[in-house]
Amino acid sequence: MPQAKPEEAILLLSCTDRKGLVSRISDFISSHEGNIVDLDEHADPDEGMFFIRVAWDMNLFTLPKDLVESAFAPIADKFEARWKIRFSGTRMNIAIFVSKYDHCLQELLWRQRLGEFPVNISMLISNHPDLEPLAKQDGIPFYHFPITPGNRQEQEEKEIRLLQESHVETIVLARYMQVLSSSFVCRYPERIINIHHSFLPAFIGGNPYKQAYERGVKIIGATSHYVTSEIDEGPIIEQDIARISHKDMVQDLIRKGRDLERIVLARALRYHSEHRILTHGNRTIVFD
Amino acid sequence: MPQAKPEEAILLLSCTDRKGLVSRISDFISSHEGNIVDLDEHADPDEGMFFIRVAWDMNLFTLPKDLVESAFAPIADKFEARWKIRFSGTRMNIAIFVSKYDHCLQELLWRQRLGEFPVNISMLISNHPDLEPLAKQDGIPFYHFPITPGNRQEQEEKEIRLLQESHVETIVLARYMQVLSSSFVCRYPERIINIHHSFLPAFIGGNPYKQAYERGVKIIGATSHYVTSEIDEGPIIEQDIARISHKDMVQDLIRKGRDLERIVLARALRYHSEHRILTHGNRTIVFD
Amino acid sequence: MPQAKPEEAILLLSCTDRKGLVSRISDFISSHEGNIVDLDEHADPDEGMFFIRVAWDMNLFTLPKDLVESAFAPIADKFEARWKIRFSGTRMNIAIFVSKYDHCLQELLWRQRLGEFPVNISMLISNHPDLEPLAKQDGIPFYHFPITPGNRQEQEEKEIRLLQESHVETIVLARYMQVLSSSFVCRYPERIINIHHSFLPAFIGGNPYKQAYERGVKIIGATSHYVTSEIDEGPIIEQDIARISHKDMVQDLIRKGRDLERIVLARALRYHSEHRILTHGNRTIVFD
Amino acid sequence: MPQAKPEEAILLLSCTDRKGLVSRISDFISSHEGNIVDLDEHADPDEGMFFIRVAWDMNLFTLPKDLVESAFAPIADKFEARWKIRFSGTRMNIAIFVSKYDHCLQELLWRQRLGEFPVNISMLISNHPDLEPLAKQDGIPFYHFPITPGNRQEQEEKEIRLLQESHVETIVLARYMQVLSSSFVCRYPERIINIHHSFLPAFIGGNPYKQAYERGVKIIGATSHYVTSEIDEGPIIEQDIARISHKDMVQDLIRKGRDLERIVLARALRYHSEHRILTHGNRTIVFD
Repeated sequence: MPQAKPEEAILLLSCTDRKGLVSRISDFISSHEGNIVDLDEHADPDEGMFFIRVAWDMNLFTLPKDLVESAFAPIADKFEARWKIRFSGTRMNIAIFVSKYDHCLQELLWRQRLGEFPVNISMLISNHPDLEPLAKQDGIPFYHFPITPGNRQEQEEKEIRLLQESHVETIVLARYMQVLSSSFVCRYPERIINIHHSFLPAFIGGNPYKQAYERGVKIIGATSHYVTSEIDEGPIIEQDIARISHKDMVQDLIRKGRDLERIVLARALRYHSEHRILTHGNRTIVFD
Repeated sequence: MPQAKPEEAILLLSCTDRKGLVSRISDFISSHEGNIVDLDEHADPDEGMFFIRVAWDMNLFTLPKDLVESAFAPIADKFEARWKIRFSGTRMNIAIFVSKYDHCLQELLWRQRLGEFPVNISMLISNHPDLEPLAKQDGIPFYHFPITPGNRQEQEEKEIRLLQESHVETIVLARYMQVLSSSFVCRYPERIINIHHSFLPAFIGGNPYKQAYERGVKIIGATSHYVTSEIDEGPIIEQDIARISHKDMVQDLIRKGRDLERIVLARALRYHSEHRILTHGNRTIVFD
Repeated sequence: MPQAKPEEAILLLSCTDRKGLVSRISDFISSHEGNIVDLDEHADPDEGMFFIRVAWDMNLFTLPKDLVESAFAPIADKFEARWKIRFSGTRMNIAIFVSKYDHCLQELLWRQRLGEFPVNISMLISNHPDLEPLAKQDGIPFYHFPITPGNRQEQEEKEIRLLQESHVETIVLARYMQVLSSSFVCRYPERIINIHHSFLPAFIGGNPYKQAYERGVKIIGATSHYVTSEIDEGPIIEQDIARISHKDMVQDLIRKGRDLERIVLARALRYHSEHRILTHGNRTIVFD
Repeated sequence: MPQAKPEEAILLLSCTDRKGLVSRISDFISSHEGNIVDLDEHADPDEGMFFIRVAWDMNLFTLPKDLVESAFAPIADKFEARWKIRFSGTRMNIAIFVSKYDHCLQELLWRQRLGEFPVNISMLISNHPDLEPLAKQDGIPFYHFPITPGNRQEQEEKEIRLLQESHVETIVLARYMQVLSSSFVCRYPERIINIHHSFLPAFIGGNPYKQAYERGVKIIGATSHYVTSEIDEGPIIEQDIARISHKDMVQDLIRKGRDLERIVLARALRYHSEHRILTHGNRTIVFD
């Protein structure tokens, strides 16, 4: 078991590149007796952008947690930055949406039991009742919202109410077989993580394994991405692949793909919940 | 250095699956005192198809090489099979088409010097003169056919005449930056091998590394395929991938992609020249 | 869900290479109206050995299952072959040995629920009581055999009695942290599958992740192998690797390694239970 | 072709971790109007060590290049750091040592022509004359130092004189089949890069592909490392692997291994020549 690590503050920040950014940020930290534990910086020369993730030890930091943001805000304002500060001791509330496939859910639940993610799984939401027993086993509330052609909007409104009541910050679609409405998606920008069972942008849409089989590819993939209102077009967080051959029928692609899907989705949730991801346009910067 | 191996006959055959196919083929071989050195069979249950590659030792085979095909033909006819028989001692004549990039060509020339391919490189054909020195170095004839908007058909006719005179069986497009006409392509079915610098079917067409960068993928690929009259749509022979990150600009994708392109094209040529590939529709069976 | 496939007979055979082997075997099958579904053959030129796996459809086969072996025996005798014939409809009885780590066990149980392995899990055996609940959940008998310095032989005898009563054919060590005695191991030749958490032969013995960290490798691995009386020296069935960096501490290696261990062990059990493995000396031939 | 990038200064530094290190370093840079282009930091919690690589733009930097080191020295002294500052415009002088195999050499020469490495290849040194033509082709001086059982010390002394006269900083052993003496090795600490054709620490010493074949591994590897006086035991810079099967004889391992060796060695030289590597004990920190 990993030892309890001392609490850390994590700053994620992006802005137009200019001189002195690292210096200004690190001075803020050291001026309050913080020790930088991890710093990863990326300057994009083509776009003139600056991206940074800094984690520092809160042990001897002279500012209390609830004052850190307001103390840092003037610096960020000067840079006209997009930014947030989070604390490693504060678990992120997440909801997992599922349908009938259990492999991604099982993977997340198993890793959660091992303490791999700094999250609380606040609830499971499904359009089918099948996976309720898995939720029960780990004491996680399960809500069943059947979706019919006519009731999506109504059901989504109920779901949103539930999510808000539980202060859910992030939604993980663990092979949830419904399309969320644009208005739902827009409420959770860069906070809905999907797993698509292909190597995007190849095989967008339905039945990607069948598409892959028919195209005769020699490698299949899985892609985890943030959901935007355009299906399968959001910023890609993580991808991985597996080699196949002519011996593999569609069923084999599905079987081999399951292993990819659960690993890729788990990695994406890990990066997201550890505050390792910044976006710029449709691209992600993942400080792994 | 690999030892000289005794000559082998190689049968590649596909037909509708039925009882007794392996038995009938292996009886043919053993009835003439042939010893099977390698046999790989694939039955596709969904399509009811049978595919086989058999290699046998010609050392003690009681039929002379020039009678093997006619002796086997009645068996193949009965199965209504697509088939061919080749001999490992007969090198395949190939032509390599290039433009200005040398990495794929260098790779093929280097491996050829090492004896990795059972081929003769009969000629290099290019729309630019730049790579002539590389051809000269290895004593390979180099022909320069500049392509202008108006002269493609005329130049292709000259190229075809050259290819025919040298009994070229297979054409390798080693980053040849021209599109061949349909009529050219149709003369060489499953005998033109291309390398496309993306993980097909993602990023079809021009500038795939730029497309990949803009989509923000985390993995890039290269694909070798047989050329058909639809661009980038022919049967895929081999693919491979490399991991990238947000640190990689388009230039880095190009650099990392070069390593993929040359390895993937070399593998494809190896499979092809060793008679390891059957096609069915738009898919390949690669007996590796 | 995969469709129920018609029953198949599977022959695994190895012998000294000679002319007519494939012919003789395929004739046996076709003479009884069997249709070969899958055939994979390997001739080792250095050792003059012949290895084959053939699967054929039993649907219209004119010999009943219980007579197939005796009908084939004269052929195998003539070749002085090592061989066995199994039927796809007969599930292999296996026992899983565990200690406290649950990741490999969870993986096997989950895949078993999905129908990925043609096995019955007859029992779990452990030197600790911790994982009993997982066994219960799937209705699998769990036996607790604590091992102390003095009682190993006695406990193993009880275990063997249990295994025999349940007709267990194969034992899977899913991170079982005890060394089995030579006499135990010798009773189950090529029938005990272990997962070692390193890229063998690197880091034999205890604490391989710590060893790997200290050596500063950039890639870690996991290895599944048959257990022989020499620790970590048995024939290797499957291996896989994961990339690490200087950022990964021992705890990270353990975390990343878990994903490898469970995937590699699952693949090995799949190959073994589908009768895809032959051995020759300390090497395996895996017809995948 | 990559555009000419503005000159950068690169600081590599390691010391005991303490508060304010990043702040102190970035203040130094920004106080002289430098803009940080790339910063990668690693704190090792187990060992209490701090590692950093910072690159900044020299364009508007107010200190001239020849004063940068002396200006930074007091800061480094205070931290009791190991450190160096290099400039991207100053190419590193390297010597390549070879014997008879050309694949690694060809790879390095080809990439050098493409401008992938910020190095000058000052000379080739070999114990055989075979590869002189390759050196000539690129106008690189070639020196032949045959090694006999009795003359190693004498020849090494001549080699060292040559290396010193040409201000060679780093030596690349591109499949050089001689062992360098301890006294030679000690003159170039962390400045001799070797490629070993196995996945170290597996298969140390001679004939690793034969060893791998005999052990029956399913994956082979190659390892690039700094040379120390203990053979194959120096800090590992980079490793990669390729999957093999029972079909691969020793010759196939050699063929597949060649592709690994050249790629892995090229990556290692890239990291080294771009000043991306720090060592700590027997481990490397590679800021890629």
